[in-house]
Amino acid sequence: MESNMIFVPIALAILGLLFMLTKMVWVKKQPAGNEKMQGISKAIKEGALAFLSAEYRLLAIFVVIASVALFFVSTLENVQTHWMIVPAFISGAIFSALAGNIGMRIATEANARTAEAAKTSLPQALKVSFGGGTVMGLGVASLAVLGLSLFFMFFVSQFLGTDGSFYDNMTVVLETLAGFSLGAESIALFARVGGGIYTKAADVGADLVGKVEAGIPEDDPRNPATIADNVGDNVGDVAGMGADLFGSYVATVLASMVLGNYLIKDMSQNSQFTDAFSNMGPILLPIVIAGVGILASIIGTFLVSIKNNEAKEAQVQKALDLGNWVAIVLTLIASFFLIDWMLPETMNMKFFGEGYKSIPSMNVFWSACIGLAVGALISVVTAYYTSLGKKPVLDIVKNSSTGAATNIIAGLAVGMKSTFASVLLFAAAIYGSYELAGFYGVALAASAMMATTAMQLAIDAFGPIADNAGGVAEMSELDPEVRERTDILDSVGNTTAAVGKGFAIASAALTALALFAAYVTFTGIDGINIFKADVLAMLFVGGMIPVIFSALAMQSVGKAAMEMVQEVRRQFREIPGIMEGTGTPEYAKCVDISTKAALKEMILPGLITIITPIIIGLVFGAEPLGGYMAGVCVSGVMWAIFQNNAGGAWDNAKKSFEAGVEINGEMTYKGSDAHKAAVTGDTVGDPFKDTSGPSMNILIKLTCLVGLVIAPILGGHSTEETTAMNEVVNDIKKEVKVELTSDDDKTAKAVVTTTTTENGETVTDYQVIEGSMEEVKAKLNALKDVDVKVDSNHVVKEVEEEIIEE
Amino acid sequence: MESNMIFVPIALAILGLLFMLTKMVWVKKQPAGNEKMQGISKAIKEGALAFLSAEYRLLAIFVVIASVALFFVSTLENVQTHWMIVPAFISGAIFSALAGNIGMRIATEANARTAEAAKTSLPQALKVSFGGGTVMGLGVASLAVLGLSLFFMFFVSQFLGTDGSFYDNMTVVLETLAGFSLGAESIALFARVGGGIYTKAADVGADLVGKVEAGIPEDDPRNPATIADNVGDNVGDVAGMGADLFGSYVATVLASMVLGNYLIKDMSQNSQFTDAFSNMGPILLPIVIAGVGILASIIGTFLVSIKNNEAKEAQVQKALDLGNWVAIVLTLIASFFLIDWMLPETMNMKFFGEGYKSIPSMNVFWSACIGLAVGALISVVTAYYTSLGKKPVLDIVKNSSTGAATNIIAGLAVGMKSTFASVLLFAAAIYGSYELAGFYGVALAASAMMATTAMQLAIDAFGPIADNAGGVAEMSELDPEVRERTDILDSVGNTTAAVGKGFAIASAALTALALFAAYVTFTGIDGINIFKADVLAMLFVGGMIPVIFSALAMQSVGKAAMEMVQEVRRQFREIPGIMEGTGTPEYAKCVDISTKAALKEMILPGLITIITPIIIGLVFGAEPLGGYMAGVCVSGVMWAIFQNNAGGAWDNAKKSFEAGVEINGEMTYKGSDAHKAAVTGDTVGDPFKDTSGPSMNILIKLTCLVGLVIAPILGGHSTEETTAMNEVVNDIKKEVKVELTSDDDKTAKAVVTTTTTENGETVTDYQVIEGSMEEVKAKLNALKDVDVKVDSNHVVKEVEEEIIEE
Repeated sequence: MESNMIFVPIALAILGLLFMLTKMVWVKKQPAGNEKMQGISKAIKEGALAFLSAEYRLLAIFVVIASVALFFVSTLENVQTHWMIVPAFISGAIFSALAGNIGMRIATEANARTAEAAKTSLPQALKVSFGGGTVMGLGVASLAVLGLSLFFMFFVSQFLGTDGSFYDNMTVVLETLAGFSLGAESIALFARVGGGIYTKAADVGADLVGKVEAGIPEDDPRNPATIADNVGDNVGDVAGMGADLFGSYVATVLASMVLGNYLIKDMSQNSQFTDAFSNMGPILLPIVIAGVGILASIIGTFLVSIKNNEAKEAQVQKALDLGNWVAIVLTLIASFFLIDWMLPETMNMKFFGEGYKSIPSMNVFWSACIGLAVGALISVVTAYYTSLGKKPVLDIVKNSSTGAATNIIAGLAVGMKSTFASVLLFAAAIYGSYELAGFYGVALAASAMMATTAMQLAIDAFGPIADNAGGVAEMSELDPEVRERTDILDSVGNTTAAVGKGFAIASAALTALALFAAYVTFTGIDGINIFKADVLAMLFVGGMIPVIFSALAMQSVGKAAMEMVQEVRRQFREIPGIMEGTGTPEYAKCVDISTKAALKEMILPGLITIITPIIIGLVFGAEPLGGYMAGVCVSGVMWAIFQNNAGGAWDNAKKSFEAGVEINGEMTYKGSDAHKAAVTGDTVGDPFKDTSGPSMNILIKLTCLVGLVIAPILGGHSTEETTAMNEVVNDIKKEVKVELTSDDDKTAKAVVTTTTTENGETVTDYQVIEGSMEEVKAKLNALKDVDVKVDSNHVVKEVEEEIIEE
Repeated sequence: MESNMIFVPIALAILGLLFMLTKMVWVKKQPAGNEKMQGISKAIKEGALAFLSAEYRLLAIFVVIASVALFFVSTLENVQTHWMIVPAFISGAIFSALAGNIGMRIATEANARTAEAAKTSLPQALKVSFGGGTVMGLGVASLAVLGLSLFFMFFVSQFLGTDGSFYDNMTVVLETLAGFSLGAESIALFARVGGGIYTKAADVGADLVGKVEAGIPEDDPRNPATIADNVGDNVGDVAGMGADLFGSYVATVLASMVLGNYLIKDMSQNSQFTDAFSNMGPILLPIVIAGVGILASIIGTFLVSIKNNEAKEAQVQKALDLGNWVAIVLTLIASFFLIDWMLPETMNMKFFGEGYKSIPSMNVFWSACIGLAVGALISVVTAYYTSLGKKPVLDIVKNSSTGAATNIIAGLAVGMKSTFASVLLFAAAIYGSYELAGFYGVALAASAMMATTAMQLAIDAFGPIADNAGGVAEMSELDPEVRERTDILDSVGNTTAAVGKGFAIASAALTALALFAAYVTFTGIDGINIFKADVLAMLFVGGMIPVIFSALAMQSVGKAAMEMVQEVRRQFREIPGIMEGTGTPEYAKCVDISTKAALKEMILPGLITIITPIIIGLVFGAEPLGGYMAGVCVSGVMWAIFQNNAGGAWDNAKKSFEAGVEINGEMTYKGSDAHKAAVTGDTVGDPFKDTSGPSMNILIKLTCLVGLVIAPILGGHSTEETTAMNEVVNDIKKEVKVELTSDDDKTAKAVVTTTTTENGETVTDYQVIEGSMEEVKAKLNALKDVDVKVDSNHVVKEVEEEIIEE
């Protein structure tokens, strides 16, 4: 069993896909409602698929260009990247698109069926909508685990038998596998940004003219932008989010595997590490945990149901929470045994700047617990800052009474303030999981957060389905009771979405850090020292990128929304009988505006994200690129939390007026001046929380992934360091001699003599290294200042005698 | 001459003060207008002085507590801080308060006199208002140079003769001098935040009720908040800014001096550096340049005048530009000769991670040029994003037509986008000036930007004086012609204020980096490596601080403004005849609200800024604190640029409607819906650009200063490193032996033997160090892994034999 461990995640992924298919068939078998409902559902589906096809066509061009570039890199001399990174990259992109596509198809099938089910009862409506969510969640998670496992197995068979050390060969395996993650994450970025622009352009446009100017309700069929609005929910909240989480999930597992390889290297210090799992337990662990997470999620989905037709938000929320926590706890219990089984009891791990420490493998489990605990706490913080009835939202409500300006100031302040606890928790997670188990611990903390992605996504995706079901109900003029039921589901969906965002940014940031750690170790640089001016400069440049990215995303939404407003105004003006319900609005024109705007506007931010790290790496070298990555992460985390929470708080401040709220002792309702001010805040918050905010996750992960993929080109020695050496104009002479002696090929002794003569004075360093030949070789090769290489025949080669004279 | 160089800046500072006095006498001699005008001016002056006294009383408590803490630190064993840091700290605080006070007194004298002068002509009004600005500018700059020079001279006489190396003693001098800067910067922080809250609470409150609800013009005497509003201009824009720039100026010069000391250390590698300037040319250079900047500014002020009474904004702007550029160019020319004279022709400078390089002293001049060029370019970028008629402001105007929400989205996007060019320029400044002349170059780049502070401040301060003059004219119902003339000056003042902000944040950030460099070198840590988890965690925490700081500042303004609104509404309701001009509003109550709010609300952000770095330093050690500083700087720069420029752009988008602006082919004016949307944006922008935005400058400098001051407590070895050592649970044995032999006290030889036995295998490192006793001592003391200290009698002490066994 142990030596074929890789088949476990494969089997679990296939199980997940089979369960997904059953669920899909079940959903499709549900009654789809009357003709009108089916027509609307079809229109939404067609609009969404049309957008996805257009998006994929455009992205295909990007994938081709990127593939050529990757192939070119793999042909460079002295670069370890294998050309197989290209098929891995393309597959990652296709899998990501597939994951989004499956989710969107089922979501657009499930919306009318949920509405139809809501005619019968709320429990049935939850069953259908959550069924749709489950299909998507399992599809994403299973495809991710399957793709990663298969490629890993294949690459291991290709590269691991060849000449050279286990570590070096495994590095090639993982570096090639990074292509899969890069493909997935690139598509995720475009899908998230494109979907985000699409949905908010349609939403803001539909609301500004429909609700505010014409005074017709949300999702009214007379509003020409209403189909676009519902399409937007699917391409943004479903397909965009699916691709996003697919990318996150793959990146997290990949980063953990890379760090597992370093762990093996650390443990091979004295003699090559071996275990029952083909000597790769620490590498396989994260992907096995991911597989188990799929199983736990399937079990969890069975618990999500309610019995009572009179149930309200609280009961629905409870059912979701139950399923979610059962999945999490099951995964955690399984992780405990897996860690105990798959890792050696104590592990020798190198801590940067502190040398080697022996740590018990259980520390890895505690790291995972820290990850989950901090993820949960960040969700609590997020919920506090964005929930109805809590102080932050009430503050915004109160400030709405003096107008839009004070509402906006209050909302911005809430978003900013919410960074405090979140960032402290996040810093504690880094610190704690690192102290326990190094960067492998940080990666496993992220993996623990992401393990139940299938369940998380099922919960996240059921919201937009319910939202759409409400739209279908409204547009097909069903009994208001139906809408009330879907509204309950929708409202719960809003809360879970906000909480999910807290989890998402926390896991994304930890993943980014794990990738960052992998990058540093991979390039062989001596850490990222921001006391170097170029590194510091790039830290600032990195800090600026999330700000620019957000600016571009917001501006795109603003532009597209204005176009939408003008088109809707035109149709109201020009189509006779539209307001009386006798004329048919041209829905397709609005869909078209959103589609074009989204496709056009997603390009620039996407390219900035991908190209900037490449330029910085090539021009300034590996360490400044590390500074850039850190800058993107630090700034990205702040702006993500700020934007997500400000947007969520504004949204709920506006919603507070629906039930009525007390301001300065007076009850205030919808339609009041204060409510209008709150609507303004909500509109500002829309692109914050649904376009730029969630894109930050992908931005930081993708930045670190790009760095990891180009790491082999950068190598340990950046140009700049070499130049620096040559710039020394003083009278300095440095000589290095290495004597390696070995009597029996088992024990060896090396004497490294470094003589530095500078301005007439001499410093001589002798270093004597004794031990087994393997160890002495390893230590000689690791010597920092000298370019010593010992080949497999134990001959010292390339002893560089650097003699620099004026 | 050379050996008494320190008297040059002292003489120039005294010259500056004398010129200031002459100018002050001249301004006071100008006619102060009729009784009503004098009464209003008096009311403003009294309100402002009352606030300042209350503020200073509160700050006195802070100064006492901080002094006690500093004194306590200086009594700690093994800590180099001298108790004289306490008087230096107190003097810094007093000088800073004095600088703000002088400025505010003259500004409140000059306002009515400017209004009176405007009765005659525009040139005369400019002369009086700019005269007031000149008094303030010269007061601030001269006091800064005088205080720094005198303390430096005194500390040199105290510490430099004593036992020990020049470098060590000079470090004590500068560490003690840092107290002066810390005092100045602390007061600046409170003054800036307090003043910022005061002025915006009054402004927003007065506008929301006066302009919007009651429909009376700005500065109408019937508005109870109008005096508070005018007081606010003085305590925020004059006293707050004066203290801010005083602090910046001192910090910049100090940082350059500290780095000058490191330069001397670098150049003393082979033999102690000597020059004609008592061996401290590189340390004296920055302060001499500052002194020359005062002289150049005085010359510049003579050029600021216009002849034509029909002049408009452009001519006034041109006159100011002429004076400004002449001062800059004169300073630059003088710097060229001073650098040539005061620095050795080539300098041996250590570049972190690259070893020593020989650089020509002229590189320092080029660094200064880079500083000025980048400062000027950042001002251009700032002007582009915030000026009337440019694309960004027009974008906001256009987006105002679809309501407040799109106006806000557009404004936020403009602010975010403006970070792009600014940050790239800033990164280029770091990179370029560092490449040229290391961190000394970075510091000199900042010094060059700050050298003409006197002139900059004169230009900045004349704006609020003109603004106030307009207020006095309005309230005393003078001829509208008077108001037109002061409006011209006010409008120019707005532009110069925006441009000045670009300069301020650029110089603040460079100063912070110079302080950061001084901190790293001072603590003796091996750079700031963000690949260490604790350093990385603190980078995130640092990144969060500016966001929280901004949130608190914005929230304070919101709260105080709401109180103000309610008070003004109450007075309108309860005081009979107030709207007819027969009842007198209770101005004092509004002044009181602003005063109390400002004092109360400035405390928390101020304490967060000062206490957080202390806690992090003590708990986590020197390197994590460095990560924190970097986080504050990176995030602070982004948020400063974002907030300043978004605020400036909103302001001018609103102003665009005053002259009328074309939106979608239609001319739109004041009073339109689009204009109302723009007013909302402007109100949101007010605390951005006048409270939280400008506070970022001080936040980042003060953070680095606090770090520098507590550096001696942290030392090179943080607790965490020691702990790490003890956590090694393997069977590791490490022995270090040091043999220091010297025959003649001149040449010496040290052999350092390190034997590490780990898991049975032994590695032995021998290091032989030969050279003069001084050099060998220095190198031994610098050994990283071993705690070797060589005392002045050349006895090796504290050779730590670390034996760690399981």
